[in-house]
Amino acid sequence: MKTALIVVDMLNEYDHEDADVLVESARAALPGMRRLIERATEDDGVEVVYVNDLYGEWNAGRTELLERVMQGRYRELVEPIAPAEDAIFIVKARHSIFYETPLEYMLRQQGVERLVLAGQVTEQCILYSALDAYIRHMDVVVPRDAVAHIHADLADAALRMMEINMRAEVVPAADSLR
Amino acid sequence: MKTALIVVDMLNEYDHEDADVLVESARAALPGMRRLIERATEDDGVEVVYVNDLYGEWNAGRTELLERVMQGRYRELVEPIAPAEDAIFIVKARHSIFYETPLEYMLRQQGVERLVLAGQVTEQCILYSALDAYIRHMDVVVPRDAVAHIHADLADAALRMMEINMRAEVVPAADSLR
Amino acid sequence: MKTALIVVDMLNEYDHEDADVLVESARAALPGMRRLIERATEDDGVEVVYVNDLYGEWNAGRTELLERVMQGRYRELVEPIAPAEDAIFIVKARHSIFYETPLEYMLRQQGVERLVLAGQVTEQCILYSALDAYIRHMDVVVPRDAVAHIHADLADAALRMMEINMRAEVVPAADSLR
Amino acid sequence: MKTALIVVDMLNEYDHEDADVLVESARAALPGMRRLIERATEDDGVEVVYVNDLYGEWNAGRTELLERVMQGRYRELVEPIAPAEDAIFIVKARHSIFYETPLEYMLRQQGVERLVLAGQVTEQCILYSALDAYIRHMDVVVPRDAVAHIHADLADAALRMMEINMRAEVVPAADSLR
Repeated sequence: MKTALIVVDMLNEYDHEDADVLVESARAALPGMRRLIERATEDDGVEVVYVNDLYGEWNAGRTELLERVMQGRYRELVEPIAPAEDAIFIVKARHSIFYETPLEYMLRQQGVERLVLAGQVTEQCILYSALDAYIRHMDVVVPRDAVAHIHADLADAALRMMEINMRAEVVPAADSLR
Repeated sequence: MKTALIVVDMLNEYDHEDADVLVESARAALPGMRRLIERATEDDGVEVVYVNDLYGEWNAGRTELLERVMQGRYRELVEPIAPAEDAIFIVKARHSIFYETPLEYMLRQQGVERLVLAGQVTEQCILYSALDAYIRHMDVVVPRDAVAHIHADLADAALRMMEINMRAEVVPAADSLR
Repeated sequence: MKTALIVVDMLNEYDHEDADVLVESARAALPGMRRLIERATEDDGVEVVYVNDLYGEWNAGRTELLERVMQGRYRELVEPIAPAEDAIFIVKARHSIFYETPLEYMLRQQGVERLVLAGQVTEQCILYSALDAYIRHMDVVVPRDAVAHIHADLADAALRMMEINMRAEVVPAADSLR
Repeated sequence: MKTALIVVDMLNEYDHEDADVLVESARAALPGMRRLIERATEDDGVEVVYVNDLYGEWNAGRTELLERVMQGRYRELVEPIAPAEDAIFIVKARHSIFYETPLEYMLRQQGVERLVLAGQVTEQCILYSALDAYIRHMDVVVPRDAVAHIHADLADAALRMMEINMRAEVVPAADSLR
């Protein structure tokens, strides 16, 4: 069973409401994410996949989105985990990584049945994406120290929902790739 | 803007794990649901729509599902809110009311943009369906006393998630149809 | 690799425009369909699946749709190929058997990767369903003498499109289940 | 009712089977496409949208796809109709412009209900995309001299199918934007 590490919504300008809280949490999760991406990149059995909101910029792909955030205020939150040129990169228009994107098709083509969901926001896109993976009978792993949240209490509830109702494994990042 | 009252997963045999807790909660929510269905049925601006899991019975529609639960142990939880013969009835195979069902198509055809989500389970199918409605830019209302849960704390968190992150109105059933 | 025989749109009242031409063609294809369904029913490696338009009747499932056509003018075109009680039965709202239906999910759950498409209309729902199967990397077989058409020339072109561009096998019904 | 001009699969290296025939047809359709794109760009009521296959290159967006074809053998078939930097650009993984892409969401957000389908291949992606638009109740226009084909006879049949069964208007490019 092949695994994909999915990095969700980390190309972000953090200019929305609640951004300050998220920035703090993202900064704390950054080392965990960086190590995960490094390990996944070296592991032939793991695909590294970035799925990122296009924030209404309908002409944007990897190049355009990366350029914008690297010129923004929070470059230091992007640079350590920026997508390599050959990383799979899929844009999304709404919250779930599966909604009207070619992700499911790509995962099936690559034989991936296990998703490690890193990135943000735990109680929003991570939760929604875990649900959409579970509905499609894919296994879900959430590396607890490689996801970022806005509301700590809702993030805790989201992690419990994923464990109890979506059979996700919630584990330290170091244990999430086997 | 037209409204639909969606009755989620109430044709249920309650023979799964955790069923006892759910039965209690469903019994408490039953009067709220019944009144909502009655009011919606009389209101020309409101569609009454049942969306129900087919529990792996791939030959089942309204007739078959209703027959089975009416012969089951929990008939009294079904009879007061059983679908009228002319009610819209859509089967689903997985948790969200939108996943691989014609619901979205039907709602657009009928001009519905506002969903009142009643039924069960608050922290599962109701939450997931609210998300899928929000992603599609539909307004969501959750009548607090016409939904049933298994885990009270997760249900509370789910209601807060719907309010904060999906802009849902969480209100008494009596206020959910305007 | 498991096979499904899909019987498309054969519960039909034939009261639409062009119905006379279709009735002729359906009558000619009926023996081929009947034998296919019989053989598929006896074959443990083949699922028999009916997918049928609900013609805008949003409360209809197998029971309701079958009842209506059995009371209609063309009962003799339905009776020989009517779905058994335990046949898989999926309603659709629009032309393709895959559009907003749980068919793809069900086929994956059953391990089906090869579809034999019988029924009507060759140059419409059969063509569209073949396309949607091909896009999903499923193998398609069209039993030439178990499908019905309205426009003979477009039906011929549709069969060639399926062969050339969707890699479908177009074969006699007798050769379509192996 | 807003219109979108959709330019389908014109960023192409033409290195597949049947490419020679397609190159001829694309060259003949190029002036019609170019004028259409110019007129649509000047018209505030028309969105210009490129939808292009990513040919299995899962890290590719507009920038990467354009770069590749501009360095290829058929640069002269791309340059006159290359997407402007602010044109909407959506990648697809399979034949239809709607399959697992955010196109439908984007069109609804922009209020688009009428699609003019230019590009290639008439009897393949154009036909399939017309079908998927029709199923979604969008109006379809095919500018006869701004689409390219591989099999002339199947292309003719495809245009007739679109007219008869999908209610598309098949008109000269000069008449397709009103």
